[in-house]
Amino acid sequence: MKLATLKNGTRDGRLVVVSRDLNRAADAAPVAATMQQLIEDWDARAPGLQSIYEMLNAGRGVDHFAFDPAQAMSPLPRTHQFVDASAFLNHGNIMEEAYKLDVKKTPGIPVLVQRQSDDFWGPCDDYPLVEADNGDFEGEFAVIVGDTPMASTPEQCAQQIRLVMILNDVSMRAHLFRELQMGFGFINAKPATVFGPVAVTPDELGEGWGADGRIHLDMKVSRNGEWFGHPNGREMDWSFGELLARLGLNRNLRAGTILGTGTVSNKAARTVGSACLAEKRALEMIEKGESTTPFLKIGDKLRFEVHGADGQSIFGAVDHQFVPFKAGA
Amino acid sequence: MKLATLKNGTRDGRLVVVSRDLNRAADAAPVAATMQQLIEDWDARAPGLQSIYEMLNAGRGVDHFAFDPAQAMSPLPRTHQFVDASAFLNHGNIMEEAYKLDVKKTPGIPVLVQRQSDDFWGPCDDYPLVEADNGDFEGEFAVIVGDTPMASTPEQCAQQIRLVMILNDVSMRAHLFRELQMGFGFINAKPATVFGPVAVTPDELGEGWGADGRIHLDMKVSRNGEWFGHPNGREMDWSFGELLARLGLNRNLRAGTILGTGTVSNKAARTVGSACLAEKRALEMIEKGESTTPFLKIGDKLRFEVHGADGQSIFGAVDHQFVPFKAGA
Repeated sequence: MKLATLKNGTRDGRLVVVSRDLNRAADAAPVAATMQQLIEDWDARAPGLQSIYEMLNAGRGVDHFAFDPAQAMSPLPRTHQFVDASAFLNHGNIMEEAYKLDVKKTPGIPVLVQRQSDDFWGPCDDYPLVEADNGDFEGEFAVIVGDTPMASTPEQCAQQIRLVMILNDVSMRAHLFRELQMGFGFINAKPATVFGPVAVTPDELGEGWGADGRIHLDMKVSRNGEWFGHPNGREMDWSFGELLARLGLNRNLRAGTILGTGTVSNKAARTVGSACLAEKRALEMIEKGESTTPFLKIGDKLRFEVHGADGQSIFGAVDHQFVPFKAGA
Repeated sequence: MKLATLKNGTRDGRLVVVSRDLNRAADAAPVAATMQQLIEDWDARAPGLQSIYEMLNAGRGVDHFAFDPAQAMSPLPRTHQFVDASAFLNHGNIMEEAYKLDVKKTPGIPVLVQRQSDDFWGPCDDYPLVEADNGDFEGEFAVIVGDTPMASTPEQCAQQIRLVMILNDVSMRAHLFRELQMGFGFINAKPATVFGPVAVTPDELGEGWGADGRIHLDMKVSRNGEWFGHPNGREMDWSFGELLARLGLNRNLRAGTILGTGTVSNKAARTVGSACLAEKRALEMIEKGESTTPFLKIGDKLRFEVHGADGQSIFGAVDHQFVPFKAGA
């Protein structure tokens, strides 16, 4: 099943079911008016949406209209918890080597970062940039979970995964190193996050949803129409269930919690590329002693997309442009 | 105006207006069914609740019932953003001196910590504890704000402050130092946060709501019925407006954002006491070379309360007990 949220002037938008080929959409109401309502009451409401999805794919039995990603909000436009992992150790290792960082990780314990979740932006919305902030992107996967009691096992946590998404975790590196050194996590380093237009149930990934709790698919990133990288999600150092279990060690995770993977990164980064500028710049620093790839510039266009084994775009694309920052925008 | 949210089996609870003396309550519906609904549409809905509040205080014109804090949830039981500052530099200075910490702060830039907001606990609910986690409390003030566009000035931010609360920022110190050293903020160090039962408009603080954007009132903390401290909020090193402006530097702050002050701390901590165990333990370490005050124990009872110039309890009390942790509780 594929789902999106369309802009309708409200904070939570209008939930729609999207056809597998991403061409058509049908209203999810009255089964569920918003994504939040669906996630809070998944077992009761998801079957009805699955029926709509099947009719929509068949092209009969339900009113539908053309799906336009430019009209989409993030699938869950706001939520009550967003945590981003740094689950590809390869990425951190490259950064630490290039910049001589001394990150005091504890072996076996994943890096998890608490993030704001009040104002996610639409997948095609213009994004404000102050070039001096050294803007960057991070292509990631994420899951949305249902209610998960504290101290659940990785297996129990994995059973609460309802939907999968992609995202651009927009990052301002000029703030990031200062905030990382201070120790209290990210504030100005992480402005609004942008999720891809369509959230899908794990079965939509086919064999891309691995038995090891990782996503075995390439995150394809382009900048201004040129290939930037296509690292694969399979090299995640913890499964989604393991990451969620650590997060929920002494907390309940309430319905709508989003967990991101952190920027996708592969050991073969020199050939498959990266999903963020910082990693490419770090590889340049290691190899040439200087970083030549520039941070984001006004007018830059970014695209993030993931295709299944059959070539079908699974989540649609984050496809947005960076524009001059204006106060109060 | 004073407001609370009562348990009714839903995630967002039942909004009620509470009398100034905290003895009586009246339903806020149909003006506003939940706190979130009120905060999102404050200008339209707050006047109606103010009318109910005035009738309730007069004891006539509105149906009412006894207000029982034990039935209260946090005033905003969940929200889309919670950020906790560390706005009393005195606290950090004591901690850094005692434990030889090297926190790389930038002068002028406040410490702000992104926190989870999906599962706040009720002010009188039993709280699960693993003693080995070195449990601690932190008595704080907080504000709830309306929609605040990115890059707003401190003055503009201050105008968006809708309500004031108190809280116990429960902290697990055994995780905290590890997470602080790693640099990515707090995850296991900060389980569910507990807000006081009643949120109030700033005018309810009288002269306690200072023209300097700080709260000039004592945070009274007791442990097992014994005085622990009563530090005053006036020594905050940034105003609420200044903290919010830094948070919103490159982000919109959406309605319902909660900003906490961090543990209240005074330069005269040796006489007025502290609002957390860690600070008292740090002072012991500095003076005696060892910390003798124990971390939280099973069965410990904590109470946090603030009184106005007339002796009236303003927010009611966080008044809760620590009980054995059980998985899945």
